Amino acid sequence: MDFAARLNAHLARVEHGLATLVPAATTRPARLHAAMRYSLEAGGKRLRPVLTLAAAELFASAAPRAAVRQSKIRNPQSKIPSPLPAAVAIECVHTYSLIHDDLPCMDNDDLRRGRPTAHKAFDEATALLAGDALLTHAFALLAESYAATPALAAALVRELADAAGSRRLIGGQMEDLLAEKKADATADELEFIHLNKTAAMIEAALVLGGRVGGAAENHLTILRRAGRHLGLAFQIVDDMLDATADTATLGKTAGKDAKADKTTYVKVHGLPTARGRAEQETSAALAALRQLPGDTTFLVALTEQMLARKK
Amino acid sequence: MDFAARLNAHLARVEHGLATLVPAATTRPARLHAAMRYSLEAGGKRLRPVLTLAAAELFASAAPRAAVRQSKIRNPQSKIPSPLPAAVAIECVHTYSLIHDDLPCMDNDDLRRGRPTAHKAFDEATALLAGDALLTHAFALLAESYAATPALAAALVRELADAAGSRRLIGGQMEDLLAEKKADATADELEFIHLNKTAAMIEAALVLGGRVGGAAENHLTILRRAGRHLGLAFQIVDDMLDATADTATLGKTAGKDAKADKTTYVKVHGLPTARGRAEQETSAALAALRQLPGDTTFLVALTEQMLARKK
Repeated sequence: MDFAARLNAHLARVEHGLATLVPAATTRPARLHAAMRYSLEAGGKRLRPVLTLAAAELFASAAPRAAVRQSKIRNPQSKIPSPLPAAVAIECVHTYSLIHDDLPCMDNDDLRRGRPTAHKAFDEATALLAGDALLTHAFALLAESYAATPALAAALVRELADAAGSRRLIGGQMEDLLAEKKADATADELEFIHLNKTAAMIEAALVLGGRVGGAAENHLTILRRAGRHLGLAFQIVDDMLDATADTATLGKTAGKDAKADKTTYVKVHGLPTARGRAEQETSAALAALRQLPGDTTFLVALTEQMLARKK
Repeated sequence: MDFAARLNAHLARVEHGLATLVPAATTRPARLHAAMRYSLEAGGKRLRPVLTLAAAELFASAAPRAAVRQSKIRNPQSKIPSPLPAAVAIECVHTYSLIHDDLPCMDNDDLRRGRPTAHKAFDEATALLAGDALLTHAFALLAESYAATPALAAALVRELADAAGSRRLIGGQMEDLLAEKKADATADELEFIHLNKTAAMIEAALVLGGRVGGAAENHLTILRRAGRHLGLAFQIVDDMLDATADTATLGKTAGKDAKADKTTYVKVHGLPTARGRAEQETSAALAALRQLPGDTTFLVALTEQMLARKK
């Protein structure tokens, strides 16, 4: 299968997971569940859940054949669990962070993924609660879907809660807001924001997949490193696109970083340096991926595509 | 130990847990962590974490002596884990729900537990993120603190995520908001709101404690029933106090339900019926508690006190 076909297969699986592993829009209270689904179903690149599926596949198809054989001797029921609930959980957390980030008291944005943001399509209170509910559902999904392998379930919850927590995802959003009000945010503050607001969840996406696939600790460390570099490259490219692309192409308001005087890589270091750093981080991510077992062709191509993307 | 002494011992333990099991206010980003601690340290009754500690004690001190003896044979390290992280986790979720509930787009309240609400003391964005962070921290804390007993960790996460999820806590808040805009909210809608906005987390507080203490499934069912009745009684008394007490006594804005034309038990059924139903639910909670093993004196007295309270 070539890259496009594998990507489409992963994407179809993610959409199926979102359709089946999140409460139906008609669940009481319907307005809340409709808002959760409205934002989840708006699409987007689905980068994080695709990374989870691809990382799990890497290990399930490669290294641990011996382990699977061995575990069959001990327990005939034992098999590698599906990474789909973990992929859906990470997309729920990502979507919640976008809904809350778009609220009037945060970035106050009207457009996301080419559609009105949740608080525009519904109202602020419903958007707030839909975000809260998606975050909570992510943990319910992990605990429930991996209940048969509780050590895995607990490890996945811990990984996701750390990545989404006050020192990482939320901490990055907080410093992002604080930097916005400052005339001279430093390169250190920018690094903190990118490492935590963006890279944390991309690291977690890969590590969750690795954990479900049965990766050993040394391979989880490499996945984490690949995620950090890919996450940094991804955010720098995002900053560059905000400064250079148009709203129609992006599907979200373009030029809004400059308008809000946001601390972006482009603002702090300029476009040419941003380009160089994005390439450097991509190379570092690729180098890490190549140290992993299994067929890394897909993850390598996806990482390269994230650098070349136009939206 | 009499009731007051036992309550104070539990409260001191909860405060110690909140002080040690939540990141310090100086953790980067300091503004976020200071806001999390500001709301957590505002006090309040600490009903939910005290219920968790008391429920765990019931089982740890009573029924499973044989189980402990038996497990010692198999594993000399085995002992009942501390219920304190579970108690802190439930207080984190309760506090997050109050912070978000007080935001301008929700109840728009300026006063909570006798102090300015989080968005008044900080700002809306910081309050939003502090709420998000407390919710996320609850799951991190469960997964991390009970990592040595992963089946327990996964069960606790599932219990808390269900109680705090879109069908229960958040669903109850959503219907509460929707009912506010209606001239004639029904008794069924009121029941849904109370069962989910309030009773869900009180049930979870008892069940989390029971799970940590090693309660059997039939006892967890009784704890859940006791929590449902106690939760309903608690919310009806809250509605009555809002209608009858003053702001200084309550430590939160009094009379705001009537002002906002909220769907309360008092509005739908009137004060005398509310009083009767609160007594009836309290009796049902007490009847359930008396079916549990161990010394239920404290939980019985606490339940009676919740009916008699003046704030």
